[in-house]
Amino acid sequence: MDPMRIVEAQAEQTPSKIVMLVMDGLGDLPRYGDGLTPLAAANKPNLDRLARDGCCGRFDPVGPGITPGSGPGHLGLFGYDPTEFEIGRGVLSAVGIDFALQPGDVAARFNFCTLDGKGRVTDRRAGRISTEENRRLVARLRTIPVPKGVKLFVETEAEHRGALVVRGKGLGHRLADTDPQRTGVPPLPVKALDAKAKPTAAIVAAFVEAASAALGGEPRANGILLRGFDSLPHIPSLADRFRLRPVCVATYPMYRGLARLVGMEMPPAPPALGEFPAAVRAARDGHDFLFVHVKYTDKAGEDGDFDRKCAVVEQVDAMLPEILGDGFDVVVVSADHSTPVALKAHSWHPVPALVWAPGRVFRDGVTAFTESACTAGGFGRMPLRFLLAEALAAAGKVAKFGA
Amino acid sequence: MDPMRIVEAQAEQTPSKIVMLVMDGLGDLPRYGDGLTPLAAANKPNLDRLARDGCCGRFDPVGPGITPGSGPGHLGLFGYDPTEFEIGRGVLSAVGIDFALQPGDVAARFNFCTLDGKGRVTDRRAGRISTEENRRLVARLRTIPVPKGVKLFVETEAEHRGALVVRGKGLGHRLADTDPQRTGVPPLPVKALDAKAKPTAAIVAAFVEAASAALGGEPRANGILLRGFDSLPHIPSLADRFRLRPVCVATYPMYRGLARLVGMEMPPAPPALGEFPAAVRAARDGHDFLFVHVKYTDKAGEDGDFDRKCAVVEQVDAMLPEILGDGFDVVVVSADHSTPVALKAHSWHPVPALVWAPGRVFRDGVTAFTESACTAGGFGRMPLRFLLAEALAAAGKVAKFGA
Repeated sequence: MDPMRIVEAQAEQTPSKIVMLVMDGLGDLPRYGDGLTPLAAANKPNLDRLARDGCCGRFDPVGPGITPGSGPGHLGLFGYDPTEFEIGRGVLSAVGIDFALQPGDVAARFNFCTLDGKGRVTDRRAGRISTEENRRLVARLRTIPVPKGVKLFVETEAEHRGALVVRGKGLGHRLADTDPQRTGVPPLPVKALDAKAKPTAAIVAAFVEAASAALGGEPRANGILLRGFDSLPHIPSLADRFRLRPVCVATYPMYRGLARLVGMEMPPAPPALGEFPAAVRAARDGHDFLFVHVKYTDKAGEDGDFDRKCAVVEQVDAMLPEILGDGFDVVVVSADHSTPVALKAHSWHPVPALVWAPGRVFRDGVTAFTESACTAGGFGRMPLRFLLAEALAAAGKVAKFGA
Repeated sequence: MDPMRIVEAQAEQTPSKIVMLVMDGLGDLPRYGDGLTPLAAANKPNLDRLARDGCCGRFDPVGPGITPGSGPGHLGLFGYDPTEFEIGRGVLSAVGIDFALQPGDVAARFNFCTLDGKGRVTDRRAGRISTEENRRLVARLRTIPVPKGVKLFVETEAEHRGALVVRGKGLGHRLADTDPQRTGVPPLPVKALDAKAKPTAAIVAAFVEAASAALGGEPRANGILLRGFDSLPHIPSLADRFRLRPVCVATYPMYRGLARLVGMEMPPAPPALGEFPAAVRAARDGHDFLFVHVKYTDKAGEDGDFDRKCAVVEQVDAMLPEILGDGFDVVVVSADHSTPVALKAHSWHPVPALVWAPGRVFRDGVTAFTESACTAGGFGRMPLRFLLAEALAAAGKVAKFGA
């Protein structure tokens, strides 16, 4: 049996407070020459102090060799086995823009794209149009008529990205992506992957055709590409599983969406990074698990920018005393996945993690928060969901099992 | 869910090539005095360089405390959970001599043995008779008449070893070994372990009796001992699971047989160790996973010969540049199990492993390929099947999981 079932069964509510600081895509690989990762090269006295006084280790978000998307990575951080729950990109997009997705709704992520005269994709992101332009075009798409008994929601996410939600009775969600994932070819046709999805496919196909007509005159955003069709999965909440009262402090819609899927509350207005100290202070009251998400480490990794990844770590480190204040019993710092600068993409490498909880974790001799140091850390190498178990235990929230 | 299911689902075929060099029984224990293992004592600059530029760790073939036979050890190396698939020794023997075993066939390994005047085993290997003598005696055993509707195949393996295959309708394979595993006692009787195996037992018992009569005048090989009765298990191939095009370079029948069970191709003539560089070069074309098996480390371990185990490691190391050439994206070096010199037998200790893949694995600070150094390696300690997951990921053969 997965030991997390026992953690669930033994979980109890206490006043102790846990903060989990997630630096997205933090894990990296040693570069040639000095063998440093961005985390190792960064000047980050506060993180190093937490590592020195805490316990470190490395954690596999899904499993060895498996590169996680943001969904599986965060499920792991939140204590879930990501192989048990699959969350489609469309559900993430919809939930992440505060769209009140209902059971049975079919959601997809869409990109505005540029099509040439022959209907071939020339830019899958329509030149990364502004969010304002996105809103203007979405307003136009909302005028497209839909069949009786069906509701269609077209929602702006940011830049070229949006969410499409189809609501109606008995709609299947197993539809193939229309995004061909490359340029020079036309979008793929809307296609049902099972019989139940055929009515959905017909509705979406009609919408895509009407959208092309409606966007015909646009110089850049004259088409849409759909992917990640899915319906809301049933995921038990952190409250149900671990009796936590969780809250999310995150700037970006996707991470707020992921947090909402496991039942986290969140401030109505997403804070910018500079506003995190105030947001964390405000979120502490009435909550005992704070998920704090920093996106910019991942962005720097995806851009292959070693120095910027360092700089983000240093920026977060400098804010850390203010973010943490003195109000937490347990501090966890980790990542949802690695995004090595050299690979410019998510990777399968385990993520570094530290748990700080004075007198409650094994001080392991690690003196700096780096991937290499974590290799020799007290937690060893474990599936990521066990990081939450360690944090809960350090917070005194897991009762003894058995007599 | 076992993360290997996700690796399977996300596996994709790419041009990158993986070579997995298996030194059978390589893992060992530090000896008294200098605390060195054969691997640590050997002069092996090429393996050390791969370890220094790669990532190391230790892997449990089946699980902590479990001593694997060659079957489970290799299943682990090939990415299978050895607790899911059981392969009898008889099946291995038959498959390993290119015998076209059919579903429902019952196969057993046999040894020629020496019996004294009272029918007691005095040598379980009949003085390790030559393969030529084995063939001469097998020709005689093939003349033994069998019941109608049944076919019986008697096959030479090498020296004192052979395979017996019973083919017929509805034959059960659950028979006990007749090999008593020690001398001074008679062979055990042929015994069915379930009702379905009773007809098989009767056929085999009649054959064993007739064999004793047929071999009566022989000075050394005047009896046979049977073990490992089994039928072909259904094992999904490496092509089906991971979209690999695998090939095997191995001298010994058992390892070729194991490779064939997971769908590997192989050169028609088994190469001797000295022919490995040419065999690997020839096998590269059209294949992206090369399993290269060296037997002699295990033999030295079984014989308790520290210096010879060192010498085999040094011999392989010296050939390594020629074996690897420059044609591989990922190099894996490991073992199917440990065979410590001090124990003269397979053992339960985790095996050392390295994965070399420039820019794709975490360079972990390990500078020599030894059991001790691997203890501090970047992979940590994991079940052996995850070594393949790491190799596939390093080769870019595992797509991102989830949005």
